[in-house]
Amino acid sequence: MGTFIGHISPGLAFLSFGVLYAFKFSLMVLRGEGIELVSPPRQPGLRGCLKRIPAEGVMKILYGTLAMLAEFFYPPGVYKLSLYNREKPDLPFIHPNEWQHATMYSYFAVSGWVDVLSQACLPRRLYLLESIGIALPFYIEALLLYSHMHGKERVENSVHTLLLLACCLVCLILTAEIWRPNDRVLWFAKTCLVMTQGTWLLHAAFILYRPFSGRAWRSDDVANLMFITSFFCWHIALNIVLLLAIFWLTALWHRRCSWRAALLDTQPSFPLKRPDAAGHPSEYGKLQAAEEETRLLQECDF
Amino acid sequence: MGTFIGHISPGLAFLSFGVLYAFKFSLMVLRGEGIELVSPPRQPGLRGCLKRIPAEGVMKILYGTLAMLAEFFYPPGVYKLSLYNREKPDLPFIHPNEWQHATMYSYFAVSGWVDVLSQACLPRRLYLLESIGIALPFYIEALLLYSHMHGKERVENSVHTLLLLACCLVCLILTAEIWRPNDRVLWFAKTCLVMTQGTWLLHAAFILYRPFSGRAWRSDDVANLMFITSFFCWHIALNIVLLLAIFWLTALWHRRCSWRAALLDTQPSFPLKRPDAAGHPSEYGKLQAAEEETRLLQECDF
Amino acid sequence: MGTFIGHISPGLAFLSFGVLYAFKFSLMVLRGEGIELVSPPRQPGLRGCLKRIPAEGVMKILYGTLAMLAEFFYPPGVYKLSLYNREKPDLPFIHPNEWQHATMYSYFAVSGWVDVLSQACLPRRLYLLESIGIALPFYIEALLLYSHMHGKERVENSVHTLLLLACCLVCLILTAEIWRPNDRVLWFAKTCLVMTQGTWLLHAAFILYRPFSGRAWRSDDVANLMFITSFFCWHIALNIVLLLAIFWLTALWHRRCSWRAALLDTQPSFPLKRPDAAGHPSEYGKLQAAEEETRLLQECDF
Amino acid sequence: MGTFIGHISPGLAFLSFGVLYAFKFSLMVLRGEGIELVSPPRQPGLRGCLKRIPAEGVMKILYGTLAMLAEFFYPPGVYKLSLYNREKPDLPFIHPNEWQHATMYSYFAVSGWVDVLSQACLPRRLYLLESIGIALPFYIEALLLYSHMHGKERVENSVHTLLLLACCLVCLILTAEIWRPNDRVLWFAKTCLVMTQGTWLLHAAFILYRPFSGRAWRSDDVANLMFITSFFCWHIALNIVLLLAIFWLTALWHRRCSWRAALLDTQPSFPLKRPDAAGHPSEYGKLQAAEEETRLLQECDF
Repeated sequence: MGTFIGHISPGLAFLSFGVLYAFKFSLMVLRGEGIELVSPPRQPGLRGCLKRIPAEGVMKILYGTLAMLAEFFYPPGVYKLSLYNREKPDLPFIHPNEWQHATMYSYFAVSGWVDVLSQACLPRRLYLLESIGIALPFYIEALLLYSHMHGKERVENSVHTLLLLACCLVCLILTAEIWRPNDRVLWFAKTCLVMTQGTWLLHAAFILYRPFSGRAWRSDDVANLMFITSFFCWHIALNIVLLLAIFWLTALWHRRCSWRAALLDTQPSFPLKRPDAAGHPSEYGKLQAAEEETRLLQECDF
Repeated sequence: MGTFIGHISPGLAFLSFGVLYAFKFSLMVLRGEGIELVSPPRQPGLRGCLKRIPAEGVMKILYGTLAMLAEFFYPPGVYKLSLYNREKPDLPFIHPNEWQHATMYSYFAVSGWVDVLSQACLPRRLYLLESIGIALPFYIEALLLYSHMHGKERVENSVHTLLLLACCLVCLILTAEIWRPNDRVLWFAKTCLVMTQGTWLLHAAFILYRPFSGRAWRSDDVANLMFITSFFCWHIALNIVLLLAIFWLTALWHRRCSWRAALLDTQPSFPLKRPDAAGHPSEYGKLQAAEEETRLLQECDF
Repeated sequence: MGTFIGHISPGLAFLSFGVLYAFKFSLMVLRGEGIELVSPPRQPGLRGCLKRIPAEGVMKILYGTLAMLAEFFYPPGVYKLSLYNREKPDLPFIHPNEWQHATMYSYFAVSGWVDVLSQACLPRRLYLLESIGIALPFYIEALLLYSHMHGKERVENSVHTLLLLACCLVCLILTAEIWRPNDRVLWFAKTCLVMTQGTWLLHAAFILYRPFSGRAWRSDDVANLMFITSFFCWHIALNIVLLLAIFWLTALWHRRCSWRAALLDTQPSFPLKRPDAAGHPSEYGKLQAAEEETRLLQECDF
Repeated sequence: MGTFIGHISPGLAFLSFGVLYAFKFSLMVLRGEGIELVSPPRQPGLRGCLKRIPAEGVMKILYGTLAMLAEFFYPPGVYKLSLYNREKPDLPFIHPNEWQHATMYSYFAVSGWVDVLSQACLPRRLYLLESIGIALPFYIEALLLYSHMHGKERVENSVHTLLLLACCLVCLILTAEIWRPNDRVLWFAKTCLVMTQGTWLLHAAFILYRPFSGRAWRSDDVANLMFITSFFCWHIALNIVLLLAIFWLTALWHRRCSWRAALLDTQPSFPLKRPDAAGHPSEYGKLQAAEEETRLLQECDF
């Protein structure tokens, strides 16, 4: 949908995935974990299967399916699920934007199904299929974004070109991840770019459909085109800050958890010392926290 | 040939190669085999040589030679094997399309000869030469497709640009395969892209020469250009489904074969148990089948 | 600032970084050192911290901050720190060039802060963060240079395209350095390209704002566009010569230092021989120098 | 020189280098040799130095210097060594083509000097410097070819675009060779592309300055543009055939040499058998030849 809501909703979707990735990869780095490429065999049974359903996969299925349906049936009363206009003699194609968007969203939904099948239903996780399953929708997005730009204004094209740039970089990174799934730089670069796609789509909705000045941006003003690129650079900075904030929050939470776990673990054997340490956390804790935080950051730095 | 049949025939050729690759690589994955880069020395002699002639090489020779001849002599009575028009004073070049297509097809035919020579006639297989021999025709195809687009309509150019995109990706993958011949992801990506080239050429023939609406697609309608890209995305999805179906069929067939082989192997030693298991395949077989199928899928996932 | 001084100052900044890199990497090669990816833990305390502050980081912070301020407040009396013109009814954006430049400079300043924090303040050096921190500003520079070229003359665009080319190569190299931080070819290629960016910006200032002939270069003269590329090629050669000269100077200095160190080391044990050798350095020294110089060059050649 | 001879002479130069490379790399493959990255220390002295001077380096110096001089002083009586026209008031640049070509040629000459210095004069060979020294001129050639195309006819641009394509591929390969100097596929790909550049320049001279039909190729005829690409594809095929022929000739010559060497080696110990074998070379020799030839081809196939 070439509308305000049609840019806000995928923007929120990308942003939520980016934030989810940020927490997930931060925690994995803090715990020193990697992705299991070949999982151990799993117990069959419906209950185990349901337990293992990944949130990410379900989100992709939900978002993708709803967005696809919205393209054709939103706002209520609309019905756009037809390829060509049967009433005209030369049967021209109609709703090209809707079909392109629906194609894009359904690839994301399928990637969600692949995740669910691989992580929950199959006897073993097939990580390779999941990698390919998530790389493909971004390639399709890039292809469709590129062909989306026929016969549009320069402002709209600039906005979409920058989105295409972020999307192509995500494609490159996801392709590299097929062969290097445990590269931490790739994890965070991907996360940051997905978040940038999200916030940029949110901004794009305002630029294209609700300009703050109340008037549409004029394409014949070079200053407008130059500011679009500047804004994109600011989005990158903003998302890096957001990513660092999430990492820091996760590190705080993780330290508290592992501290509590260590407490529970060691309480029986050192009943006197630990409460002491816990009683004066101000100095010892601070020092330890700073050290640990750095060590955790180090792990990011392989 | 810039005709209906001139797009249908290479489309069928690419599709048949794609399907052949799909079966071949599925079987290799299921058997856990790789490509032998340096074969053991082989017995000389014409009979052994004839036995070793690969189907793929013969197909390439046949298709390439026939298509090349068809460019110049089809339909019967036509004779286009001349570079320039001797009747005009400035000797202008004629039949540029035919010569470009013939160049392309002859590279594929030569790749076929390289396969046959390497796999059947030489004392040892030269896999490296075969890799280079198949990468080259796709580079030539990309180059000629690119220069093919001078002065054509936008609909035709969009169709050929997408074909060029698939072709360039095949070039990239085949170049990577020169150094990584046993990468399974590359095998299946190549297979899927070759199949996509095939089905897309079939579709292109209809778009350009037999539109379903009975009227030529208009280049000034942006909806047409956008739908061409959407259709291409659907072709990719279609070919992935086809590839998975072929893998599943091959897995079924392979399981049956290896089961029978195991049966024959072990029959003398467990004469009582095996017929039993064979008599009630419903339960044991199903369970085993599901497990094995997953294990086979796993092998794909290294 | 699209002015003479606005091209001279970043030119000098890039050139000074290039020269700094040239000395630094030459010395590292001559000493056979690599970059410590994970430093040993460091002593806390303000004094140690201040000692460890890297010159490079401080230079980046200073240059970046000053240049950013100059964009908005130079020459004195100017005030450009506003995004849009509040006096006009449609609130048009103003100062697009200034905001683009300020964005670029602040990324470099942030990279300086990352260097200072990582090398001086944190308990351990985080080399990976520094690598990413310096790669990012060049990506942003490339993006902004690209969007800078809307609606300008062809001479200006040619000059900026060549700058963009050097910048993109630096991006590529810095990205490769994230994974291969100790590759000596990458070190010197980066150094040479950063120096080329510097001298080219100096030259560009003269081409665009103070042409030697006293008249502006005409964009409709193809000879001008061709000479711009030739000049760029000469800059590359010039900077390679400069780089070799710096390497040679560093090698001279390093030999003298290590010779003196060896002298001090061995003086107690060979009190008679050494002064002798030092007394007639003409022959022995020359031979040794030539040999050592070559050995040092060899180390560059891994 | 944008003249017939100005395209013929670099064409012959590239072709001669390609043929030289073809013999050199064929022999290295047949002998199972690689490039010595770090040579053993060498004896000083002028005689040893002169003996070690490489033919390739001398060729580069000679060709480069002569071509550079020819740009400015050929045909005799011409003097073009001036950057701008002092007689006109606005001092316009003159001879842009000559200066671009001279820049290109001098980079090749410098690469020759680097080869001579590294292989003959320095105590040890610096292979890395040689690799960089030969990669650089091709990058400069690509850059200048690209900027060469301003305001020319489409036929000339098509011809130069294809040359640029070959040149860019050579750049890529030479860059890869800096890190993988002993990759045999890269050796032969480079050889073939350099030869193609040579023959294509020869052909280009005829297309642009001496068309066989006697009339200039018209740029408004699409057939001409399409045939230029077809011809380029035929050049690639031709050069592959030429490369295979040179490999076969080298293999013949190498077999004869190693056979004679083996004869001389073993004659004292088996004085009776060898003459026998040498007396009936028809059967035994043929078989051995075929086997050895294949083995040698195999070595190409690592």
